[in-house]
Amino acid sequence: MKTKRKKAAIIIIGNEILSGRTLEKNSNYICNQLTEIGIICKEISIIPDEKKKIIEKVNNYRLNFDYVFTTGGIGPTHDDITSESVTAAFDDKLVINKEAKSRLENHYSDDLFTKSRLKMAYMPSKAKLIDNPVSIAPGFFIENVFVFPGVPKILEVMLSEFLRTFEKQSKIFKINITTILSEGIIGEYLTSVQQTFKDLEIGSYPYFKKNSFGVSLLVKGEDKKKVDLAGKLIIEFLESKNGQPRLF
Amino acid sequence: MKTKRKKAAIIIIGNEILSGRTLEKNSNYICNQLTEIGIICKEISIIPDEKKKIIEKVNNYRLNFDYVFTTGGIGPTHDDITSESVTAAFDDKLVINKEAKSRLENHYSDDLFTKSRLKMAYMPSKAKLIDNPVSIAPGFFIENVFVFPGVPKILEVMLSEFLRTFEKQSKIFKINITTILSEGIIGEYLTSVQQTFKDLEIGSYPYFKKNSFGVSLLVKGEDKKKVDLAGKLIIEFLESKNGQPRLF
Repeated sequence: MKTKRKKAAIIIIGNEILSGRTLEKNSNYICNQLTEIGIICKEISIIPDEKKKIIEKVNNYRLNFDYVFTTGGIGPTHDDITSESVTAAFDDKLVINKEAKSRLENHYSDDLFTKSRLKMAYMPSKAKLIDNPVSIAPGFFIENVFVFPGVPKILEVMLSEFLRTFEKQSKIFKINITTILSEGIIGEYLTSVQQTFKDLEIGSYPYFKKNSFGVSLLVKGEDKKKVDLAGKLIIEFLESKNGQPRLF
Repeated sequence: MKTKRKKAAIIIIGNEILSGRTLEKNSNYICNQLTEIGIICKEISIIPDEKKKIIEKVNNYRLNFDYVFTTGGIGPTHDDITSESVTAAFDDKLVINKEAKSRLENHYSDDLFTKSRLKMAYMPSKAKLIDNPVSIAPGFFIENVFVFPGVPKILEVMLSEFLRTFEKQSKIFKINITTILSEGIIGEYLTSVQQTFKDLEIGSYPYFKKNSFGVSLLVKGEDKKKVDLAGKLIIEFLESKNGQPRLF
């Protein structure tokens, strides 16, 4: 019954995230998009703009996951070293991609097509382009490594367009239940449900809002019947404890 | 002149982040707090609630960084497996920490001190407690690994209190300059400044706001004179190109 689900990993590249200057949101966008088509993200790494580190991480991930997504470091400035690093990871040559160059040439007038901007046409010789309808400069992929820019608005358009070319995996069913009871009260019962349904993933997430707190429970799995049954058992338990369960 | 600055890494544990359900903000908070006291965060990993994965990552990071911070997975439910995993990483025994148990006992009335809640007192035998003024259940540390909860409001209070015990590292100076010019226009000049000042870190971050776009430049380093000089050169260059530089 259980399908061999495709696994992905994400590499976020940028000192500005590690210093705390920038709140990183690209990985959340990518994870949601992947979940949507049934691909599981298994790991995210956030690393500095350091060539050695990028090479090491790309090489580790591309061998261990079906898909690897990178964001950041493909712009026109000196700290944009993702393309050369990915090229080195694949032991490929960094070359001017003619199609990428031609798109940039068409986009910028002659005096604005600077040496810095030409930098964005350099890619591994085996790279295939990922379209950028927003700011033209394309991303690329080589084998199972997909290289995207770090500017959220550009990444989001590029990624959602590009993922249409991916095959949709089998659906994951889920049920979300909230309760006013705390984890300490419901923990033992949840453990027993998890032990009964080993295929399912039962997550428990406390929340604290302005005037209320409680726990949000997420039951997920590929077998809809099991998900529904586990959800029903949990709701019955919560009702028996006056936990005011709500189903989403 | 260059000090041996302490390096940190962060491990964020939780399936809810990898599925895209939760936007992860704890690492940004930790990075900002670390930057404040002069510690550099060099890497962040976000991994699932899987024992093997947690052990592997903790063991890799604790040998390669001065400090390792983990968040998530120390609550009372079945999916909270960080304590047992960190214990295994250190080849230690998972035991009831008496002080932690006593704090929980004092906090909860007898009928509310459930078996699930007692789970939160289990730690490596060599663990030392990290106080939790919000919800009492303490975090802990063992050697250079610091284990925090994942609920942001609790983590934030615990971490900022705890970091007061850390020695402040030497200051990092920085200058932030914005310009209306794009990276493609200023990239070449920035490269030359970076080549002149190899000790400095010069970052370039395009921004897109409602009615404006441009680039935000960050010049950082331990030598204030060099930071100021590089900043001055960049501002002069931007002025010469009508880039309307603004200094922050």
